[in-house]
Amino acid sequence: MLLAIWKTGKIVTQEKFAAILVIGNEILSGRTRDGNIQYIAEQMDSIGISIAEARIVPDIETEIVAAVRALCQRYDYVFTTGGIGPTHDDITAESIAVAFHRALELHPEAMARLEAHYGADDFTPARQRMARIPQGASLIDNPVSVAPGFRIENVFVLPGVPKIMQPMLLGIVPTLQGGPKKHSITICTMLPESVLADGLAVIQADFPDVQIGSYPYMKPGQVGVSVVVRGVDGRVLTHIQGRIGELIVAKGGKIVPFLGEGVG
Amino acid sequence: MLLAIWKTGKIVTQEKFAAILVIGNEILSGRTRDGNIQYIAEQMDSIGISIAEARIVPDIETEIVAAVRALCQRYDYVFTTGGIGPTHDDITAESIAVAFHRALELHPEAMARLEAHYGADDFTPARQRMARIPQGASLIDNPVSVAPGFRIENVFVLPGVPKIMQPMLLGIVPTLQGGPKKHSITICTMLPESVLADGLAVIQADFPDVQIGSYPYMKPGQVGVSVVVRGVDGRVLTHIQGRIGELIVAKGGKIVPFLGEGVG
Repeated sequence: MLLAIWKTGKIVTQEKFAAILVIGNEILSGRTRDGNIQYIAEQMDSIGISIAEARIVPDIETEIVAAVRALCQRYDYVFTTGGIGPTHDDITAESIAVAFHRALELHPEAMARLEAHYGADDFTPARQRMARIPQGASLIDNPVSVAPGFRIENVFVLPGVPKIMQPMLLGIVPTLQGGPKKHSITICTMLPESVLADGLAVIQADFPDVQIGSYPYMKPGQVGVSVVVRGVDGRVLTHIQGRIGELIVAKGGKIVPFLGEGVG
Repeated sequence: MLLAIWKTGKIVTQEKFAAILVIGNEILSGRTRDGNIQYIAEQMDSIGISIAEARIVPDIETEIVAAVRALCQRYDYVFTTGGIGPTHDDITAESIAVAFHRALELHPEAMARLEAHYGADDFTPARQRMARIPQGASLIDNPVSVAPGFRIENVFVLPGVPKIMQPMLLGIVPTLQGGPKKHSITICTMLPESVLADGLAVIQADFPDVQIGSYPYMKPGQVGVSVVVRGVDGRVLTHIQGRIGELIVAKGGKIVPFLGEGVG
């Protein structure tokens, strides 16, 4: 269940990896811009879980099943978003049931919560769809709109609406087993990144356990670069920060404040 | 090369499908929010090419190779973004070369363009990295920062910075073979989507060639739904629009203007 080889080919067994599976035609058609991948990635990063891969698939059962099976075998955790509402195009629950060879059942606790929310008279068959959970799954509380998500094995099934997904994810976070927390420092300069490239490659080679990323910054009349260093050991990051600072000065540049979200 | 089965299991041979492969640790760490998937999806939609899948992978060669091979065999076109700059973490070109069993070579035309841009004295080895192109690939012009992308078979390799990627993609679009153009209509109402669910399922069953998506809208004190209908035949969409309008009225609602991008 653990992807033990990361970047350097070295075995890093304490690390934890997860994948995100976004389910929804509206993202693939360009109608809606996904807002969940970044949020989930940030939350996982905060507890030392690295997102190793993300996929976006359409509302097609065979596609969902294939993606869930591939991802749940490879990573410690999988988070899906989308497709658990009451309408015909919400097919995530049945697809996950198929992926795990489980029956899809009306979950008594989910039924009770939804009936209490809508009232017995308005608890229509469409709304009862939202209580269909694969056998053996446990519920994920929904403090916004009641309809629960669920966990089955290492897969967490969440809704697509960010305002509903986010508090549900926050409820899950304390239940996850995190890895060593990664720290990150960002060093910005107005030099073009190609000027720093050789020097950064040398520093990266010296510290294979650390990720050094170089992200060019461009706006009219200005170029620059944000160098991001990520790793577990803060002292190593501080040392690398010094070396990158020396590199920038040696190349005739200087360190500037964060270049902002125009980056990348 | 063609994914012929879509949603209904019906063979729709004229349709064209593409995949997007976003390459970059910064997206998976949550540091940067992807801005390319939606843009590429919108451009492809405008020429009748459906994005069937998107993946985000880290800057790890084996991951890029596996994803490119899986996607290029399955879809008509693949668009990659990210990882073609001058620094050590830009490993897309060599990974694509590996995926296609091609040598990675300094491309004479790419060398000429970059040398003219930087000047002979400043055309450093790091900048020459950006002229490394898999054997047999053709260049994709970069009107912003010169360093070209490339096409190899059905894979188009583009940079990650949106302001550079976008004009390069627009240069490619006329070279692609599009499919039947899909039209889209959106109908909004302040009814909760669960009230419309049964009726929408009936309409979807009547028109299996059309995609009917239901996207709840929530903000404090307000719920609603945007129903999006997508299909090739505009007359069919107009008919379905009428039926959905009747459904909304029959459930005691009314059609309201577009609910805005709080949706989804």
